[in-house]
Amino acid sequence: MKLTKTRNIFFTGFMASGKSRIGALTAASLGWKFFDTDKLVEEKTGKTIPQIFAEQGEAAFRKLELETLREICASGQMVASLGGGTLLNPEAIELIRKNGVLIGLRASPEVILERVNRKKESRPLLADLDDPAKLEKIKSMLAERQPLYDLANFQFESEESLPHHVFTRRIIHRLLVEELDPLWVELGERRYPIYIGEDLSDYIDSIAEKTGCPQSFAVVSDQNVQDAQGSMLEHLRTALGNCPAFYWKSGEPEKNLTSIQKLLTWLLRQGFSRKSVLVACGGGVVGDMTGFAASIFLRGIPFIQVPTTLLSMVDSSVGGKTGVNHPLGKNLIGAFHQPRAVIISLNSLKTLPREQYLAGLAEVVKYAIIRDMEFFAWLEQNADAVAQQDMGALQYIVRRSCAIKAAVVGNDEREMDERGRAVLNYGHTFGHAFENLSEYRYPHGLAVALGMRCAARLSGSLGMLSAQDVIRHDALLDRLNLPRHFSNAFDMDKAFEAMSRDKKASSGRRVFIVPKSLGEAVPVVNPPEDAVRDAFKVVLGDHG
Amino acid sequence: MKLTKTRNIFFTGFMASGKSRIGALTAASLGWKFFDTDKLVEEKTGKTIPQIFAEQGEAAFRKLELETLREICASGQMVASLGGGTLLNPEAIELIRKNGVLIGLRASPEVILERVNRKKESRPLLADLDDPAKLEKIKSMLAERQPLYDLANFQFESEESLPHHVFTRRIIHRLLVEELDPLWVELGERRYPIYIGEDLSDYIDSIAEKTGCPQSFAVVSDQNVQDAQGSMLEHLRTALGNCPAFYWKSGEPEKNLTSIQKLLTWLLRQGFSRKSVLVACGGGVVGDMTGFAASIFLRGIPFIQVPTTLLSMVDSSVGGKTGVNHPLGKNLIGAFHQPRAVIISLNSLKTLPREQYLAGLAEVVKYAIIRDMEFFAWLEQNADAVAQQDMGALQYIVRRSCAIKAAVVGNDEREMDERGRAVLNYGHTFGHAFENLSEYRYPHGLAVALGMRCAARLSGSLGMLSAQDVIRHDALLDRLNLPRHFSNAFDMDKAFEAMSRDKKASSGRRVFIVPKSLGEAVPVVNPPEDAVRDAFKVVLGDHG
Repeated sequence: MKLTKTRNIFFTGFMASGKSRIGALTAASLGWKFFDTDKLVEEKTGKTIPQIFAEQGEAAFRKLELETLREICASGQMVASLGGGTLLNPEAIELIRKNGVLIGLRASPEVILERVNRKKESRPLLADLDDPAKLEKIKSMLAERQPLYDLANFQFESEESLPHHVFTRRIIHRLLVEELDPLWVELGERRYPIYIGEDLSDYIDSIAEKTGCPQSFAVVSDQNVQDAQGSMLEHLRTALGNCPAFYWKSGEPEKNLTSIQKLLTWLLRQGFSRKSVLVACGGGVVGDMTGFAASIFLRGIPFIQVPTTLLSMVDSSVGGKTGVNHPLGKNLIGAFHQPRAVIISLNSLKTLPREQYLAGLAEVVKYAIIRDMEFFAWLEQNADAVAQQDMGALQYIVRRSCAIKAAVVGNDEREMDERGRAVLNYGHTFGHAFENLSEYRYPHGLAVALGMRCAARLSGSLGMLSAQDVIRHDALLDRLNLPRHFSNAFDMDKAFEAMSRDKKASSGRRVFIVPKSLGEAVPVVNPPEDAVRDAFKVVLGDHG
Repeated sequence: MKLTKTRNIFFTGFMASGKSRIGALTAASLGWKFFDTDKLVEEKTGKTIPQIFAEQGEAAFRKLELETLREICASGQMVASLGGGTLLNPEAIELIRKNGVLIGLRASPEVILERVNRKKESRPLLADLDDPAKLEKIKSMLAERQPLYDLANFQFESEESLPHHVFTRRIIHRLLVEELDPLWVELGERRYPIYIGEDLSDYIDSIAEKTGCPQSFAVVSDQNVQDAQGSMLEHLRTALGNCPAFYWKSGEPEKNLTSIQKLLTWLLRQGFSRKSVLVACGGGVVGDMTGFAASIFLRGIPFIQVPTTLLSMVDSSVGGKTGVNHPLGKNLIGAFHQPRAVIISLNSLKTLPREQYLAGLAEVVKYAIIRDMEFFAWLEQNADAVAQQDMGALQYIVRRSCAIKAAVVGNDEREMDERGRAVLNYGHTFGHAFENLSEYRYPHGLAVALGMRCAARLSGSLGMLSAQDVIRHDALLDRLNLPRHFSNAFDMDKAFEAMSRDKKASSGRRVFIVPKSLGEAVPVVNPPEDAVRDAFKVVLGDHG
């Protein structure tokens, strides 16, 4: 990624805070010009700054400094290291605000003292003092100037232990993240951003920082992700300060309280505290489990989601539903716990098995049908690009799907309202029957695709969706290579029984979400059994 | 309990909603007079109501009715059943509002039809109609009058299956609960009331109703409570519609994720849903575990706390901390989950072992010392009444303690601020050492009492608390029979080690909460080790 909106970068900070060194390195990394304003003034006048102060006074120097700033701002993208007193001049502040971002570098008084002593060049303000007196002087000057440094858009602590290039990278990444335009899931004080890009794994620490996370991380994933996307995981861990990682065995059977307990034990053994952050990297199971573990570890710590499957990108990354299965049913134990951020790197989809991609696509189409006719039409026109995983198309469908789910969830965070989140169950009531009849071997997303075909047919036979739109509905699913037929054994009575056992079927009422038009779905309660039977037949082929 | 604030009760409702029958029963239960306004008018005029309507018109009838209402309102506490059209008269509404509460009885159109058909007396409005036509007429009249019934302060559904006396009891209890003055824990949308009384177990259903809980309950408790307070548990279960109950084995070793899983499995087997409420009846362990189970069952259901120990009444009933232990430490797994209501029946304390009462008292004194000089002085003056469990004294100390904790928690719900909830740890850092050295056999509350003695001494030697106040501090603990000496084996090095392992000691800093005066505690970070050693000695007696 490149900085496009940021025009100039100005560094401020106390003496020995590293603003010249880090400023120059930042410029080099970006391929931009670098200026030290003090040095420019000295070159221009042929005098040292103390000379200018002595001969012409501070006002004259500030004028020279401002002129210099104007000139370099006009020179295109550049990085400037400011003098210690530049920000005393309100005109300079205005110029800087207009022309770029101001970055403040901080260092502790002790670090400053050590650096000053280490360097040979003299610091006139500290001349002739012993170390304790120097430290006192540094502290009082720092306190005095703090209000100026607080003008900075961003402040960074320059630690001795951090190599310069790592520190520089951190600054540039923070600015890059600032330029991104995430999708926000609006949930009041629990609102969070979804960042969507080709590969954002390098930026996770900066995104975490921006969202106010503490800086102690654990990556949580599973063996499948470790096998298929090992290098991405390494990238993540490196970006997060070489943090440790925990891997579950993969698969739905592992989604239980025992696995949660294993992670919690590991976290405690590793010494993680309430100031730690879990980073869930994987599909829906990893996300659900990690989010749940985060919600109950030390009574709740933050977590960040890095979904790696299309389904988890468009489904579980929005909504805050976390949890595990119970022997008596799926997702019966859990919590609503919103992530601090979701970070989607679309590159992860390259290693995704085709069947899993299709399962995610079914949910994408679902969003269009339940809420967004325009999106449906876009999918019709771009079905090939979507089927071929064109990067631009992926960006579009993921963002739009998340936006639709975010809008639905924002109105009904805790799923209290039948007309709220329930609409997201389009295709799910029929789909549940297919999953159940296959003993959960048939993938959820594909079962939903079949379920949508049934629900659209049901809507048609109830006189809601026109025959033409039912055809159009199914045609889009066809073009995206979504399944047409349920080829496992089908038993109508068992299918009905499975639908009644669906936990979403409350108190004997059977609720189907059906489109009343392409782009608007509504609940229908207890439709005629004949119509439901007929609807099943549309995907049964020879079995029907 | 008796109704004291409610002066008169007026029943309104559609024909056959039961307002005369239930009204008369309510009056009989309360020992109040009962009036049927229609009948009073008929008696007074010697005419039937249709006659009055025919001869004098509706306006004249409404005037007679209003006069009658005025007369009965003046007659002291009474129950009145209103005529079908009384509320059509704005003057009548005003009179009712001023003089008492208006209760609306509801019944479904089908129930009304059945009752009308069952009774012999004619209903002129429904004369000459067949059943389907009657039902339609009832429905349309109900819809028309609904705005009038909605004027009621409370509405109750009169179900056929509910015996009259149970229904009447429900109405009276609801009014009684309305007269109670709970303490509110102010946490925005999670605010909840704490009800404190001698015996509130009969009122739990009405309190649950008032706080908006769904009406499906499970009582959760443990074997100790079952043994010591079996009849109270039966009362609770009866009041909650004979709901089922689940019992854990008692004791800290049971406080783990496996016990939670057992309860969740039982809840699922019993068919509990997201519309269920858990009622935690017991001490701190039962409360912590039930609250945690409620927070993760089907992603969170409501719970009500019925604490039975003094410690749980004044400590865990405020704050929303729920959770279980992990083999690596106490309370490491959990959630913040606020109860819908806390219901404290002080009678429960009668069967409480003396040691557990003292453990609770230690926390009570703690609240006074950290926040409330006036409360401290009250405790000095009423120490004997408190030690003897005088009911008035109990009411006072429980309410005041909860109020102090509520004020502290309200400012820092999630324990993010060192100067927030941390002050509640007065006596806990030293106390933790005593608990640890006794391998957790020494009760928490008593360890806190010893810890407070140490912390007061530490404060004294740091020049904060005056010598006189240290004496006064300890004298109150003495008068309440709280322990003076730690009689187990004591090892100073191990004590220091235990304090560092306290999870509240973050990153090597040892934080002690100490009183800077009686009534105000503050944190002190890393006090001199010598002073801490000396402070320990105050409770070591010969061992020191």
